[in-house]
Amino acid sequence: MKFRNFKMVSYMVYGRGSFNQLDEILAPQRRESQPMIFLVDHFFENKPLVDRIPLRGKDKIIFADVSYEPKTKQVDALAAQLKQEFGNVSGIIGIGGGSAMDLAKAVSLMMNNPGSSADYQGWDLVKQPGVYKAGIPTLSGTGAEVSRTTVLTGPTRKLGMNSDFTPFDQIVLDPELIADAPVNQRFYTGMDCYIHCIESLTGTFLNEFSKSYGEKALNLCQEVFLSAGDWTPLHDDRLMMASYAGGMSIAYSQVGVAHAVSYGLGYLLGTKHGIGNCIVFDKLEEYYPEGVKEFKKMVKKNRIEIPQHITRGLTNDQFETMIDVAMGMKPLWENALGADWEKKMTRGRLRELYEQL
Amino acid sequence: MKFRNFKMVSYMVYGRGSFNQLDEILAPQRRESQPMIFLVDHFFENKPLVDRIPLRGKDKIIFADVSYEPKTKQVDALAAQLKQEFGNVSGIIGIGGGSAMDLAKAVSLMMNNPGSSADYQGWDLVKQPGVYKAGIPTLSGTGAEVSRTTVLTGPTRKLGMNSDFTPFDQIVLDPELIADAPVNQRFYTGMDCYIHCIESLTGTFLNEFSKSYGEKALNLCQEVFLSAGDWTPLHDDRLMMASYAGGMSIAYSQVGVAHAVSYGLGYLLGTKHGIGNCIVFDKLEEYYPEGVKEFKKMVKKNRIEIPQHITRGLTNDQFETMIDVAMGMKPLWENALGADWEKKMTRGRLRELYEQL
Repeated sequence: MKFRNFKMVSYMVYGRGSFNQLDEILAPQRRESQPMIFLVDHFFENKPLVDRIPLRGKDKIIFADVSYEPKTKQVDALAAQLKQEFGNVSGIIGIGGGSAMDLAKAVSLMMNNPGSSADYQGWDLVKQPGVYKAGIPTLSGTGAEVSRTTVLTGPTRKLGMNSDFTPFDQIVLDPELIADAPVNQRFYTGMDCYIHCIESLTGTFLNEFSKSYGEKALNLCQEVFLSAGDWTPLHDDRLMMASYAGGMSIAYSQVGVAHAVSYGLGYLLGTKHGIGNCIVFDKLEEYYPEGVKEFKKMVKKNRIEIPQHITRGLTNDQFETMIDVAMGMKPLWENALGADWEKKMTRGRLRELYEQL
Repeated sequence: MKFRNFKMVSYMVYGRGSFNQLDEILAPQRRESQPMIFLVDHFFENKPLVDRIPLRGKDKIIFADVSYEPKTKQVDALAAQLKQEFGNVSGIIGIGGGSAMDLAKAVSLMMNNPGSSADYQGWDLVKQPGVYKAGIPTLSGTGAEVSRTTVLTGPTRKLGMNSDFTPFDQIVLDPELIADAPVNQRFYTGMDCYIHCIESLTGTFLNEFSKSYGEKALNLCQEVFLSAGDWTPLHDDRLMMASYAGGMSIAYSQVGVAHAVSYGLGYLLGTKHGIGNCIVFDKLEEYYPEGVKEFKKMVKKNRIEIPQHITRGLTNDQFETMIDVAMGMKPLWENALGADWEKKMTRGRLRELYEQL
């Protein structure tokens, strides 16, 4: 199809305190003797949020270590563990940032699809719906709450399980849940949304649907990260909407230079997506002059230090590896630089860029 | 639940020419020997669009007279006719404005629910999913493409079948389809979106989700109806997005004075929703000073004449009927004027308002 037929999340609730409705929301999805599994970012271990999870019967909380982004091995192990313990489950509820939500989506799919999640890295390879799945963000900016992918690092590549079966059946957007995020983490994740907006709005792939969402997300990011005074609950309300709108804008748009270069960092050094994008975007004045200028204002206003010199001391082979990964992201380059992008972005130019990071 | 758990449309495609993908989109929804039924606004009889409908097997086009808004009798008759002719159908595809789309939603539901559609006017009375249903707008502004209702005039009231089974399974947003709408009809329907935005953004029920969508829809309406120069395809692109965003903003907001008063006109005189809202809003400077000022600019810029004196010569009983209908719209008044609205909007004040129309 020329235009993507976009699968939407089935149910969405937005509101301060809407997390308290979770028991009621899950009730009709429970299947006799099969538990709900709550996959929770390990950040919340021993935090009050855990006591608010509406456990019933054999329901289980599993804390997920998301120090690194999810791996296919981790997904496969979780699905195998749940199958062994319960046969099947009523649903998987992901509570956390992009990694925790992506993990929940992937485990849900692997409860009903044979083999390894690595077999499904790509586009439309998933053939069976997963078990019921819900996403509850506690960090905003990735857009994972509405995306049709789940980014996974596999044995041979970092690539999502992109399919119409991947989006959540339910999302719960409760701005109270993002209030306690560490300030730097909140910034990096928020900037994932901001940088996405700059890349897609200046790109060549855009249409009016994605432009509408992208502009709204951009405005909300500007209000949140540039407004005078202290952080207030209203900032959380808006950041949560920015992430949602930014995620929706992906439907008919593409990211650009920062994401392509950042993938190289992630692959070689394990740099997480949000901070990696910030490290790269900080050096992209040439490609996004206004966006980078505004980004630097946001960095200053929010008193964040962007890590520097992270590629210092890497070997020639290591640089070549990052360049290989980045150059492979053809649609991103084409969106950013046009059909003749290969004339504009050479391996030499890319090496210079990586050396600046 | 304190916060509505909002059922979204399942699939959405947006793009110029996306109507050409309809055959491919419908293919997986076809059930053996059961046809797809295309409910098409009678405006398109003998127009080229009809020849582009991808008919297969026993598929049938039914032209729907939408001179008046849909009635429960009309819905019941259509569903009965289809059951008699085909037993059941693979799906109902509504092509047209808000009335045609609402009709399609209602007929889809009545293929699988017993009794009369009048039995389901209200909230969450529908118990069974309908047959597959898709909405393809050819007029933009009502937001019917994403709403969870289908406004119907029944034997005793004008009220929607509000339910989680009501939203479409698929919407096809092709801005080429709204290009040929009559200029005045396009304006009235577009103003349905604009007036909704003004009413919800100034209302007391708003939250950040609905505010984000409402602001985007408002900006798009302003760009479309106030920009200098002639109407271009870009205006259609944006108006279509304004309608979508305006519809989404309904999730956590409510309309206000114009809608309440307009329902009285609709009930007594059969005035259609879009034009009725314009007739009323034109006289609401007191309640929406800035919105009405901008509305008058839009009227002038687009060289529209808003009908005047439509209540001249009505009897006292007729005025009383309209006042009864309008006063019954409690949530709308509360949203517009606050919890103590009854002190601010008396029957006498409402009579004065109706006499000005």
